Amino acid sequence: MPVYKAPVKDTLFILNDVLGLDRYNNLPGFEDATPDMIEAIVGEAARLAEEVLFPLNLSGDQEGCTRNDDATVTVPKGFKQAYDQYCQGGWTGLAIPAEFGGQGLPYVLHTAVGEYMSSANMALTMYPGLTQGAIAAILVHGTDAQKATYLPNMVEGRWSGTMNLTEPHCGTDLGLLRTKAAPQADGSYRISGQKIFISAGEHGMTDNIIHLVLARIEGAPEGTKGISLFIVPKFLVGEDGALGARNAVTCGAIEHKMGIHGNSTCVMNYDEATGYRIGAENKGLSAMFVMMNEARLGVGLQGLSIGEVAYQNAASYARDRIQGRSLSGVKAPEKKADPIIVHPDIRRALLTIKSFTEAGRAFTLWTALKSDIAHRSGDATEKQTADDVLGLMTPILKGVLTDKGFDHAVMAQQVFGGHGYIEEHGMSQYVRDARIAMIYEGANGIQALDLVGRKLGLNGGRAVMAVFKEIGDFCEENRADETLVSFTKPLKKGLNDLQAATMWFMQNAMAKPDNAGAGSTDYMHLFGLVVLGYMWAKMAKAANESLASGTSDADYYNNKLITGRFYMDKILPETALRKTRIEAGSDSLMAMAAEAF
Amino acid sequence: MPVYKAPVKDTLFILNDVLGLDRYNNLPGFEDATPDMIEAIVGEAARLAEEVLFPLNLSGDQEGCTRNDDATVTVPKGFKQAYDQYCQGGWTGLAIPAEFGGQGLPYVLHTAVGEYMSSANMALTMYPGLTQGAIAAILVHGTDAQKATYLPNMVEGRWSGTMNLTEPHCGTDLGLLRTKAAPQADGSYRISGQKIFISAGEHGMTDNIIHLVLARIEGAPEGTKGISLFIVPKFLVGEDGALGARNAVTCGAIEHKMGIHGNSTCVMNYDEATGYRIGAENKGLSAMFVMMNEARLGVGLQGLSIGEVAYQNAASYARDRIQGRSLSGVKAPEKKADPIIVHPDIRRALLTIKSFTEAGRAFTLWTALKSDIAHRSGDATEKQTADDVLGLMTPILKGVLTDKGFDHAVMAQQVFGGHGYIEEHGMSQYVRDARIAMIYEGANGIQALDLVGRKLGLNGGRAVMAVFKEIGDFCEENRADETLVSFTKPLKKGLNDLQAATMWFMQNAMAKPDNAGAGSTDYMHLFGLVVLGYMWAKMAKAANESLASGTSDADYYNNKLITGRFYMDKILPETALRKTRIEAGSDSLMAMAAEAF
Repeated sequence: MPVYKAPVKDTLFILNDVLGLDRYNNLPGFEDATPDMIEAIVGEAARLAEEVLFPLNLSGDQEGCTRNDDATVTVPKGFKQAYDQYCQGGWTGLAIPAEFGGQGLPYVLHTAVGEYMSSANMALTMYPGLTQGAIAAILVHGTDAQKATYLPNMVEGRWSGTMNLTEPHCGTDLGLLRTKAAPQADGSYRISGQKIFISAGEHGMTDNIIHLVLARIEGAPEGTKGISLFIVPKFLVGEDGALGARNAVTCGAIEHKMGIHGNSTCVMNYDEATGYRIGAENKGLSAMFVMMNEARLGVGLQGLSIGEVAYQNAASYARDRIQGRSLSGVKAPEKKADPIIVHPDIRRALLTIKSFTEAGRAFTLWTALKSDIAHRSGDATEKQTADDVLGLMTPILKGVLTDKGFDHAVMAQQVFGGHGYIEEHGMSQYVRDARIAMIYEGANGIQALDLVGRKLGLNGGRAVMAVFKEIGDFCEENRADETLVSFTKPLKKGLNDLQAATMWFMQNAMAKPDNAGAGSTDYMHLFGLVVLGYMWAKMAKAANESLASGTSDADYYNNKLITGRFYMDKILPETALRKTRIEAGSDSLMAMAAEAF
Repeated sequence: MPVYKAPVKDTLFILNDVLGLDRYNNLPGFEDATPDMIEAIVGEAARLAEEVLFPLNLSGDQEGCTRNDDATVTVPKGFKQAYDQYCQGGWTGLAIPAEFGGQGLPYVLHTAVGEYMSSANMALTMYPGLTQGAIAAILVHGTDAQKATYLPNMVEGRWSGTMNLTEPHCGTDLGLLRTKAAPQADGSYRISGQKIFISAGEHGMTDNIIHLVLARIEGAPEGTKGISLFIVPKFLVGEDGALGARNAVTCGAIEHKMGIHGNSTCVMNYDEATGYRIGAENKGLSAMFVMMNEARLGVGLQGLSIGEVAYQNAASYARDRIQGRSLSGVKAPEKKADPIIVHPDIRRALLTIKSFTEAGRAFTLWTALKSDIAHRSGDATEKQTADDVLGLMTPILKGVLTDKGFDHAVMAQQVFGGHGYIEEHGMSQYVRDARIAMIYEGANGIQALDLVGRKLGLNGGRAVMAVFKEIGDFCEENRADETLVSFTKPLKKGLNDLQAATMWFMQNAMAKPDNAGAGSTDYMHLFGLVVLGYMWAKMAKAANESLASGTSDADYYNNKLITGRFYMDKILPETALRKTRIEAGSDSLMAMAAEAF
């Protein structure tokens, strides 16, 4: 049977020892986030994830969602009850401002507990997850009336939300979309068209579903400049807030997917459905990007989450399964064979995941803290820098954590041998579920392009310079620390590769943009490798400090250092390969005619 | 709808231009393999794969196999008819000696057509595929009577075969197996026990199923020294060759797997079933390895096959799907967007697969030719060297082609964006099917250990020296060829990395075997990178020669060179990373206690 235990200790180590959250108690919402409070919240989230969400994960995959003849959708057994507990615990509104019914706590805390929820049950967690994105869009672009009408119920989880972007012929290139919005005399619109791949598109777990829908107002310009965003509720909402008529939006089919079977991914048909514009006419994409950016961080977190739970199962299996003997002599003479965790190649797989996931957790929390600073700080410079870094990190976090989350699910599955290939152990599900995270909310190739083509050069490279400076300063400040040299030295080397590759783009991609496109995915991973190396250096420093202070938990911190050294020795050197590939340019890619492929 | 076209032209290019098969017409079976004959055979195989096997691939996945209440198994619709056509075409006996009903043609030809069959329908092709392994074991270790009783029907495909090794508690470590064999007065045995993950274990497509079963004779030593191999037919065979009583071997369940749903992977229960020992008592593992080695080459080929068909679908989709505009300016002004194949990142993915798959095809055929030479040559030295190289290449071919075949199926799926995640396009199936090839017939970690722990040092490193010499000689002989320098130079660099890593093992793994285990997977991939680089150098040389001779098909050969240069520029440099990781040793892997993972 699959196992999952939320890594509470690691979360607290990062929040308290590495990021020093108590230093931010001048930010709104952070004053309540004392170490005790954080521990209580994180512990409560762990309980919900382990005891309520996780037991429904495998059964949810096997059962899947069903569209009934009346176009309603049945979700897997137990999902509704678990979702209700999720909402009752206040998890849907954890970081939402109190004026809309939330708790106003830091986003970094929301991120910390979000990891547990997705590890425990990614398909189920997507239902409230989509709502978060819709809330973010309404918070930023909604009118006061729209906020009052929709937010309290959404924050409470009684209503859920969705994002309706993709159509059969367009996903990445939203400029091609055809869904129409016809203006009505009362200021509303009639929305008509078909959307596909709509996560949590239809279900009976909430009283209402608030669809955020991209569409083109009649007569609007072609391309991305003619797209607007609309709120299309499943049930119309009266002025008194009461639910009214059923709107003309229906689930046409449930997609037959590789994974996340517990989530109802729908074809949604809009047949002159009533919609309300949110944000300015023809400015729908910028409103959409508010929820998209939120969603991208959430999807990156999913990659981390699945890597973590897959790892835990592989480690547990490797400790239990006996097969063969250690190369360095029998380790368990009382048994007929040694547990497979004695084999270096099994440890290589496990440490590859572990060393990435621990740094990935630090990366997500560090980024989430930047988001808090960007949104809540009163210091304009600090706010600006945090926002720059958040924008730069979003595609890296999404692309790298999901590419690797999938790879790691596969690696963990491999530890099980043939038992990983049958569905009973749940390892196949992790692989199948993790796969989607590389695709949705912008396929990872698009993340890489966003990074190289847009984020890198933004404001004269201000964001990338800020990150280089932060990492460079860390190396410089700790240069004399001999206990840290096995971290700072390889980190500096990785940073040099990253800076050289960045310079290469500056010199070679302006005149020839294909050089940027050719190296974009390598650059995204190169950046990820270095940032995770930086996280390891920060964690090693914190671990060293605890050890120096005579902690009673020396094993924990020593194991942190071992895991980190594995990353520095075996994983981080990949920066050189990524740089080599980038510098090989685009010539061999672009030379061949399309029909010769 | 999925597409597949057998790459006949590429196969012929390798067989004729690169390997020069006509130079081997002194070997038995090769005298009939004239270029015309080869073209006819390969073309006929292509037709069967494209028209008969491929149309059943997606439906076979969706339908799967069913175990009925009477323990019979129903395979997907159309499989029986397609299998019959496969047999009628003589494909089951293509490379089997004529005295047992085969055609005695080269194994390299069997390998060439095998690729098409697995690309078209891996699950279906496994039924005759398993029979090949069983035939090989009986050919080498069977008595004359056993050969006469079983082989003709198996070669004809009227009977199929299976391999029964794995038990619930043991896979890799067969020394733990518990299935019992009780000797009977008539020289037969009663076999009792349970086997799991038995591919093609039960079905009604053939009149009989010949199970080859590992079991322990009562009183035999513990561990691997007490294992024998048995023939256990589903229906007993009379002295006259007629089918007799149903034997006490039944399908207990069909495994619920991630993929290859069209193949009936069974739990097999042996309940005092009648079995006949094949090979010497307690020497079952060596008999088993005959079929295992055959199977490993077949599984490596599956990795290649799935990579190829997934690639073809991705390339086709990338030419058709319009989305966004080229970074270097509009390419299809008549359309609302450019086909996505204009984007460098899409080309990067496609060329990563294409450059690997074309070299992988050369690698499988080059290795298969070594097998032919090893088995058929009259020259003792040539025979010995070929056998050395075959043994060394088997784990590399299995491990590298299946690891990469899976990665490439994932990469091809990614080209489809969200459409790759739904089952209709078939891309999910390629990923799910390819996944098993990394696991069965020895998980890839075991292949890497076989390479580093066994094959590398065998006979004082004779095999590895032979390969280094062959590649080194090629570089030396062609050093002056300026048209080839962009291939020979990086190849030489890769070979240097491989030789340095090999030397590192010699110096560091004798005293500390964990150093070998820690670097084994990296070494396997390092070796694969170099061998595929060698294949590209050979292909480039052949392409250059055709171009120099004024071929009318210059585009084809120029595209070969472009694809090869992509490999040399972007893929082969990974050798340096692999070497770095190997040289980082095992310290950071072995330091942590098992419970700290």
